[in-house]
Amino acid sequence: MSAARFEQIALIGIGLIGSSIAHAARRAGLAGRIVGSARTAATVEKALQLGIVDEGFQTAAEAARGSDLIVLCTPVGMCGPIAREIAEAGAFSDAAILTDVGSVKGAIVRDVAPHVPVGVHFVPGHPIAGTEQSGPEAGFAELFDGRWCILTPPENCDAAAVARLKAFWQGLGSHVETMTPEHHDRVLAITSHVPHLIAFNIVNTAGHLERVTDREVIKFSAGGFRDFTRIAASDPTMWRDVFLNNKQAVLEMLQRFSEDLTALQRAIRYDEGDTLHRLFSEARTLRRGIIEAGQDTDAPDFGRRTTTHQAGADEKA
Amino acid sequence: MSAARFEQIALIGIGLIGSSIAHAARRAGLAGRIVGSARTAATVEKALQLGIVDEGFQTAAEAARGSDLIVLCTPVGMCGPIAREIAEAGAFSDAAILTDVGSVKGAIVRDVAPHVPVGVHFVPGHPIAGTEQSGPEAGFAELFDGRWCILTPPENCDAAAVARLKAFWQGLGSHVETMTPEHHDRVLAITSHVPHLIAFNIVNTAGHLERVTDREVIKFSAGGFRDFTRIAASDPTMWRDVFLNNKQAVLEMLQRFSEDLTALQRAIRYDEGDTLHRLFSEARTLRRGIIEAGQDTDAPDFGRRTTTHQAGADEKA
Repeated sequence: MSAARFEQIALIGIGLIGSSIAHAARRAGLAGRIVGSARTAATVEKALQLGIVDEGFQTAAEAARGSDLIVLCTPVGMCGPIAREIAEAGAFSDAAILTDVGSVKGAIVRDVAPHVPVGVHFVPGHPIAGTEQSGPEAGFAELFDGRWCILTPPENCDAAAVARLKAFWQGLGSHVETMTPEHHDRVLAITSHVPHLIAFNIVNTAGHLERVTDREVIKFSAGGFRDFTRIAASDPTMWRDVFLNNKQAVLEMLQRFSEDLTALQRAIRYDEGDTLHRLFSEARTLRRGIIEAGQDTDAPDFGRRTTTHQAGADEKA
Repeated sequence: MSAARFEQIALIGIGLIGSSIAHAARRAGLAGRIVGSARTAATVEKALQLGIVDEGFQTAAEAARGSDLIVLCTPVGMCGPIAREIAEAGAFSDAAILTDVGSVKGAIVRDVAPHVPVGVHFVPGHPIAGTEQSGPEAGFAELFDGRWCILTPPENCDAAAVARLKAFWQGLGSHVETMTPEHHDRVLAITSHVPHLIAFNIVNTAGHLERVTDREVIKFSAGGFRDFTRIAASDPTMWRDVFLNNKQAVLEMLQRFSEDLTALQRAIRYDEGDTLHRLFSEARTLRRGIIEAGQDTDAPDFGRRTTTHQAGADEKA
């Protein structure tokens, strides 16, 4: 039996990430059974209909009971209360692995670790993958293919449990890297949290304008704005929890972002064309690095692939 | 003969937009002949090889001579000098239509209009379409399909010339709207210019970080950052000229953006979760408007369409 295989996987929360884990785990034959819990009966019903879970519950404790892998797939702010609920119900199996998929790691360790019984292995995790869509119907098996999953095991963590979870994520299609929660939160603040915040922000700025109508903002959005609205369409509850739980790193990165933006603003005001050209050119180099690393395609996406030629280019990528 | 058809179209500058106009005009049978000019012999040669132009030159005046439609497809800062060059060579045909595709309109009118001889119809234009790629090989016939083209004809402009250019852009696949240059520059500042500036900016902020390596920024870019690098991969010269030539509107929108960002920053610092949730939720409404208006697809692009299921969804959109 593969080390990556679990007898029963419990998905606590069955949204985009939870349902994608289910699809990818079935694809790779990594799960004997998959059970799950969601807050509403409607989501549980939907997950059963879609074949995402073999059995569904409305409490985390019921799903956790008898599972050898428990994955918290809820917004970050829910993880602490859920861990406590499972612990208080005595529903953690001995030697079970408990992990999560939250975009913040320091706060998860702070909130979850105190509730984890001795003999249960808590290995926080974060797959760097997603779409702007939410809910159990948004998941698909290929979501993690070629993307990175970061694990932030505590120092005293059982090495075999970490190795097993790593093998599991590799089985789902991911590359895996380990780092400290603090470093994770700093890296993600710049690569994900601040980008989302400024996307949310510009949509709101556009909404406040006089003399430019919403209708105009929508019609002429193909000049760049629509790409920000795509990012800003992500789940509001998830993102609220991210910002409240990675406050320090986000505020530091925002401060740096604002300083750099002020410098650009000043270059525009004083007609410093050379400065603008130099800064704009540097961005292209980093873009090439991302394409070479397989983290994006070089298909011309602003044209939104309306041609056969482009569809072909995309499939190749 | 269709009003939208021209005997000879001169493309001054043969990059993404110029070459796309050529492809789309041929598709619709709107051009007797297409000629073009580019600064370098290599680009002229490439445009001939790709069949974009029937004849190519290294000066704008040679391309303009004998053309009944002249389209300036260079960075905004070049348009004034080029109009002067054509005028000084006496290369404008009587009753020719002169237009451009610049992302800024007030400065174009300021720089170009003084050089336009009596009897030549100057109708500034701006197709709101593009990709993050540049050069003659980046163009394709479908680029303008379903996108908007804004014309900003001066008050005393010949109505027949405006109608003809409008029919031409409709023939290329666009919707067409007219407005004043000032209003155009304000709308585009928020829907295109400021979004590009903040995309360039966050890439630079990431580049300055200590303790977070470029390698990490690249590896973990799928959390949002890569979408900004796509926008920031656009042509640096074009964008330098946009910011230098739409200074007033860009600086105003940047000021508003910064105020709104400061408010979000403050909400994070003081744990105002309800404020964050409300602002994040509003962004989703605008996103729906953009999809309903056909200006973007609702295929889950962060997952970058790796599945058959998604490719199908994309084609449908």
